[in-house]
Amino acid sequence: MRSVSIISAGMTTFGSFPERNIRHLACEAGNAAITGAGISAQQLEALYLGNFAGPSFTGQSHLAPWVGAGLGLDSVPCTRFEAACASGGAALFHAWTAIAAGAYDMVLVVGVESMTPQSTAKTTEILSAAGDVTSEAAIGATFPGLFGLIASRHMHKLGTTREHLAAVAVKNHANGMLNPRAQLRKAITIEKALAARPIAEPLTLYDCSLISDGAAAVVLCATKRAEEFTDRPVRVLGIAQASDRLALHEKDDITTFPAVRQAAQQAYQMADVAPRDIDFAELHDCFTIAEIIALEDLALFARGEAGPASLERKTARNGKLPINTSGGLKSKGHPVGATGVAQACEVFWQLRGEAGERQLSRAAIGLTQNLGGSGATAVVGVYSR
Amino acid sequence: MRSVSIISAGMTTFGSFPERNIRHLACEAGNAAITGAGISAQQLEALYLGNFAGPSFTGQSHLAPWVGAGLGLDSVPCTRFEAACASGGAALFHAWTAIAAGAYDMVLVVGVESMTPQSTAKTTEILSAAGDVTSEAAIGATFPGLFGLIASRHMHKLGTTREHLAAVAVKNHANGMLNPRAQLRKAITIEKALAARPIAEPLTLYDCSLISDGAAAVVLCATKRAEEFTDRPVRVLGIAQASDRLALHEKDDITTFPAVRQAAQQAYQMADVAPRDIDFAELHDCFTIAEIIALEDLALFARGEAGPASLERKTARNGKLPINTSGGLKSKGHPVGATGVAQACEVFWQLRGEAGERQLSRAAIGLTQNLGGSGATAVVGVYSR
Repeated sequence: MRSVSIISAGMTTFGSFPERNIRHLACEAGNAAITGAGISAQQLEALYLGNFAGPSFTGQSHLAPWVGAGLGLDSVPCTRFEAACASGGAALFHAWTAIAAGAYDMVLVVGVESMTPQSTAKTTEILSAAGDVTSEAAIGATFPGLFGLIASRHMHKLGTTREHLAAVAVKNHANGMLNPRAQLRKAITIEKALAARPIAEPLTLYDCSLISDGAAAVVLCATKRAEEFTDRPVRVLGIAQASDRLALHEKDDITTFPAVRQAAQQAYQMADVAPRDIDFAELHDCFTIAEIIALEDLALFARGEAGPASLERKTARNGKLPINTSGGLKSKGHPVGATGVAQACEVFWQLRGEAGERQLSRAAIGLTQNLGGSGATAVVGVYSR
Repeated sequence: MRSVSIISAGMTTFGSFPERNIRHLACEAGNAAITGAGISAQQLEALYLGNFAGPSFTGQSHLAPWVGAGLGLDSVPCTRFEAACASGGAALFHAWTAIAAGAYDMVLVVGVESMTPQSTAKTTEILSAAGDVTSEAAIGATFPGLFGLIASRHMHKLGTTREHLAAVAVKNHANGMLNPRAQLRKAITIEKALAARPIAEPLTLYDCSLISDGAAAVVLCATKRAEEFTDRPVRVLGIAQASDRLALHEKDDITTFPAVRQAAQQAYQMADVAPRDIDFAELHDCFTIAEIIALEDLALFARGEAGPASLERKTARNGKLPINTSGGLKSKGHPVGATGVAQACEVFWQLRGEAGERQLSRAAIGLTQNLGGSGATAVVGVYSR
């Protein structure tokens, strides 16, 4: 397999933009990536579009050629990839596969979601379809409920506390304050998070990520050609996608996601790095408990230790292992299909020293982890300069 | 790029099965392909799932890992591909790309759709999202209307007649009579087709394909390993996917689909065959006019000659160039996401001499053509023993 690099990244601000259609969002991010790479759209050999539920949120299917034509791509394959909340990661993984294996030299990956055209109730219903509808959504187990169960079990089994969860929220809100593209730029305290209204026991309002509109894009290029376009390509050292069963009740242990462990193991091995080599990471904090479990599944902390580490600020921007410098899904926002690609954007900017006020002083190796549903899809990537 | 082969095919009967869920359909076809290859599910390195609108038709997203777990796949990447009515073709094309480029040796491709859980009115609305919703569906231009416009223009510009269209329907119904997996096994006459109730001028009931439930699957394998599993692999000589603008009003000429011409040119070149080398083909006859245009865009007949050729029975099963021996979308049925994969199944069976009563006497090189929407996606494949 050939080495693959990201040569540019583009992103809309994440937020509530009900007046902007999904194609506008995708094209803003895509054009930013194309311009950033100093290329013309006609040089791109394919479009990999990550989108979870555009048809349900906006009524429009067949999004990929629609976006491709809007960007001026030249009749090349334009395809939508859907893997629930890991749709962006799945698009990125398949684009990487095609270049790594030698099918293309340069492609565009765009992730997009437009959620605010629907009501919150309808949005909850659409999102719930990422779980097993028959055994979960049909009995009212939407995602806050499922992750509430997961959090309760993690607290019972591994000693995680509500303060640990709140610490994740406080940190990600603090990071989002420094990201001009973040949706919710608002500092909170542990006390405020704990006192917020309950959503699904034991999760409160600040344990939950946002409902967002937005898009993110990267241009992927065979590393051997990357220097034609930039003197600072960001290499994909390793990337893997893995799957698991859809329903929570089919899992042996709901405090860990086997697909994340599997994808991480493959990505670490491909990258030839160990967890201790990771300098920073963008993790899928759809709920605060998901960040804690990701830290453990990625072997960045031992089981049961990610909660205390979060409270001890080890994952803060100035801590030992900065997590979600972008603000994460909690504060930057979570336009579902965009998230996996937006994580790659943040790692790209950090590794190139272009992260502005939130720039890390040490950023040599970064990791991304994108989760679909309650763990049935996972994509993990490891990147370096 | 490495040579890739199909080593087995599996398919459900197409029909109206509102009592069967989408996972059951996908797993029946997938298991048939796995069993046919004489492999275990754990040997498959990825699942490529073509599905157009499972979330809209059935309420369930995140279908790929759900189907993968149902089939017993071993935590490998399971991803859904959506490109409207070419979703199956897109899944097949990306699976081919990954093996051809050396990323995997053996993967499963499944196409599936479950449409009958929704009313016909709702189904029409869901399907219309494959066109430009804002400029087409919103003003009532659903697909029968769009293809009615296309047919009218083709008749005006190229002399195609309603008898030509009816001849396509009569032939595909006759072929479907011989296919035990076809949904509508009913012989019709030109007179009956012409006298049927109008759907969208100039199209009548028998010019339109069916609303169907069903699934199809193939196991793709690197050719160099194919002989471990079968002594009669079917080689993918060439395959390509291309894109075009979504809305009909954005096209220069609505009597031809540039994406089909582009994909065909690439597939012929890759296969190193000319249109005259094709012995038979499975074409995307979502409406009878679409088969006529496909014959012309694929350069199997000159522009304006496909209609007369159809009436002269040149495309009949015992004609010079048999088209849609399976019965096509018209008679076999059109479970949207399954169609592109089902076309590959028919070509596989014909090339291996396993097509039963409808077996062709000369079948050395076969072609498939899968169309998304009103031409914004096209996938063309060329196959041989």
